[in-house]
Amino acid sequence: MTTPHAIRSDAAIDTDIAALDLADPLAPFRARFALPDGVLYLDGNSLGALPVATGERVQQALQHEWGTGLIRSWNSADWIGAPQRVGGKIARLIGAQPHEVVVADSTSANLFKLIVAALQASPARRTVLSEPGNFPTDLYMIESALATVGGDRRLVLAPRAELAAHIDDDTALVLLTHVHYKTAEMHDMAAVTAAAHARGALVLWDLSHSVGAVPLALNACRADLAVGCGYKFLNGGPGAPAFLFVAERHQATLQSPLGGWMGHARPFAFVDHYEPAPGVARFLCGTPPILALTALEAGVDLHLEVDMTQIATKARALAALLIERVEAQCAAYGVSLVGPRADAPRGSHVSFRHPEGYAIMQALIARGVIGDFRAPDIMRFGLTPLYLRFADVAAAADTLADVLRTEAWRDPAFQVRQPVT
Amino acid sequence: MTTPHAIRSDAAIDTDIAALDLADPLAPFRARFALPDGVLYLDGNSLGALPVATGERVQQALQHEWGTGLIRSWNSADWIGAPQRVGGKIARLIGAQPHEVVVADSTSANLFKLIVAALQASPARRTVLSEPGNFPTDLYMIESALATVGGDRRLVLAPRAELAAHIDDDTALVLLTHVHYKTAEMHDMAAVTAAAHARGALVLWDLSHSVGAVPLALNACRADLAVGCGYKFLNGGPGAPAFLFVAERHQATLQSPLGGWMGHARPFAFVDHYEPAPGVARFLCGTPPILALTALEAGVDLHLEVDMTQIATKARALAALLIERVEAQCAAYGVSLVGPRADAPRGSHVSFRHPEGYAIMQALIARGVIGDFRAPDIMRFGLTPLYLRFADVAAAADTLADVLRTEAWRDPAFQVRQPVT
Repeated sequence: MTTPHAIRSDAAIDTDIAALDLADPLAPFRARFALPDGVLYLDGNSLGALPVATGERVQQALQHEWGTGLIRSWNSADWIGAPQRVGGKIARLIGAQPHEVVVADSTSANLFKLIVAALQASPARRTVLSEPGNFPTDLYMIESALATVGGDRRLVLAPRAELAAHIDDDTALVLLTHVHYKTAEMHDMAAVTAAAHARGALVLWDLSHSVGAVPLALNACRADLAVGCGYKFLNGGPGAPAFLFVAERHQATLQSPLGGWMGHARPFAFVDHYEPAPGVARFLCGTPPILALTALEAGVDLHLEVDMTQIATKARALAALLIERVEAQCAAYGVSLVGPRADAPRGSHVSFRHPEGYAIMQALIARGVIGDFRAPDIMRFGLTPLYLRFADVAAAADTLADVLRTEAWRDPAFQVRQPVT
Repeated sequence: MTTPHAIRSDAAIDTDIAALDLADPLAPFRARFALPDGVLYLDGNSLGALPVATGERVQQALQHEWGTGLIRSWNSADWIGAPQRVGGKIARLIGAQPHEVVVADSTSANLFKLIVAALQASPARRTVLSEPGNFPTDLYMIESALATVGGDRRLVLAPRAELAAHIDDDTALVLLTHVHYKTAEMHDMAAVTAAAHARGALVLWDLSHSVGAVPLALNACRADLAVGCGYKFLNGGPGAPAFLFVAERHQATLQSPLGGWMGHARPFAFVDHYEPAPGVARFLCGTPPILALTALEAGVDLHLEVDMTQIATKARALAALLIERVEAQCAAYGVSLVGPRADAPRGSHVSFRHPEGYAIMQALIARGVIGDFRAPDIMRFGLTPLYLRFADVAAAADTLADVLRTEAWRDPAFQVRQPVT
């Protein structure tokens, strides 16, 4: 491998990058995405890229199912079954049974449903345990759920290393994001779940940065509850609906606080009194968002063609390449890795810290290398094995080095804050 | 006008139907919808038809904004502003200020948010008042909200004529559907609101069967809170996102129980503690569903081209025609009108009762006349002035008469129950 910069020599990066791409069993999947020219997209952990099939599938749903089928498509196109059908497909990606997962609402709303359900199932237990710096909406929804349910319940935040010590007989629920949205640190799902169960607590896993990125085995880990995001690694489209998982053993006892008509045992009987559907369907609420579900299903279908272990293996290799190449070229400019190295338990994005991270990221985006920024100082790069090449990741690292070396980020245009950053 | 059946003679139906269509100022709007051949679609009150522009707008959002713009479109395509932007457009259809409406979640979830917000704002008041036979999810969400908030609060159901007498100093909230989903009866929004305010109660209006169908003047009626559906008369697509309205005077005090990150004062500061956004934005929860919002916006934009009084005038004329023509031909077969006549306060659908309503509707659908059935015996026909002609409504009535006269509905195939009926 020839580069203009001195690269530390180890197994991951000594290999010729072109050869890595040639040998990549996932390489053919890149053509299944509609990627723009002139862009290296390292933000699929925030918004996944557009699968080619999605445009056609959504047009089919629009023109044929909605336009021609009209109201009949609730039956003839099985719109009514879409939350369970797509949920059942996602179940295969997370190690769950098909009847344990539905697609519905947003991740935030699903968190609320499951937090309240867990609190009400354990009225004698008063605390929800999480960690500071968890993804904000996870903490907000705990606050919201506690404020709504009332009583003397409270949120306890403990640093990752001290979590297990804080699980006690007063813990109703432990809520953690499996892969951290900034650092990519990954919790040991089986160990945390076992520790919680030992004290009689339930665990709710937010899989937003895990699903489609790392192999998951919810039932093998004895997971109780989970939620996850459709628009990141599942490539379901901006604001795609989310999913939720309720282990079969909890389905008869847990109740949704959002008992809408789609979670009713007989939604089309139009009776005045709510009667929860059997199974996970009781966690449905309003009318399913068919166009968005169609786009999500196309993204999920693509994932079902691939072995998750192949994805995880390539993600790890991409992370190793990015970390090595950035550290070799950018450490001198004050860039440092945040979170685990490639061989540690981790998700599929890599973050670096720099005091001028915001402006540096804007300068990168102006050069077509798209990552994102997370306050106060994190530059985050998503590694999506289905559509990223080793050459892309190497070029992204080299562009970062060039932005730093030339101080391109000092351009005042790159200091201007955007509404979404 | 020549028909094979004897038609009762009055002002509404003596007029030649073709002349009515020729004189219809809304007639050009029919070409703006992608309606299938061979179908008379009288179910736009359940799922509105596909606007021609929607296909193009959604493809633009898919290919250009998502595919090419990727994560950048949150800023460059103003995805982040979509809930407020589309909400502001809907505000013009309901007599609200733009900053009083946002698009978010489902009607059911929005009901939950506003019911809980109202309950928590009036902790000393213990009852929520509604009417039996309200749309089920309205009642279910009251039950859900009460079960979640707890305490000795309760739901009180009173028949329409007795509602005012049941509003007292213990009433926290009156929740009514403005236009009844079965009967099309319309509440007097100003009068009910005034009666509630006189006892210190708030009113939450479900506008699902009103918005886009009848003129609305929320602020003129001093309305407090409202929700509404995007996929009926607004033609936003199957499962389109819903909207909610919070009158400016309540925005600083009411809190959403679903305080997700999009309702945070600074969502991209990524802080651990929830701080509600000022204004109606605090009722946002998760990431906005961009593809679905795009389709909804196309439907709303079409409505903004038309004067709502023109729509209401034509809807009333269509209702008069349908009622007269059905009664003249079908009363002898046991069909009777449910709900108000055309000149009474009413929404934009017409329902008839028949013990064999389910099978009769299936037979109608088999002949291309699409209405819907609502248990136990209601045949419901939506009258959507933007894409229905007087001739369509007359033909639908004639087909119903033919199904009854020939007893076509006795075919066993029409007795088979579908999942969605």
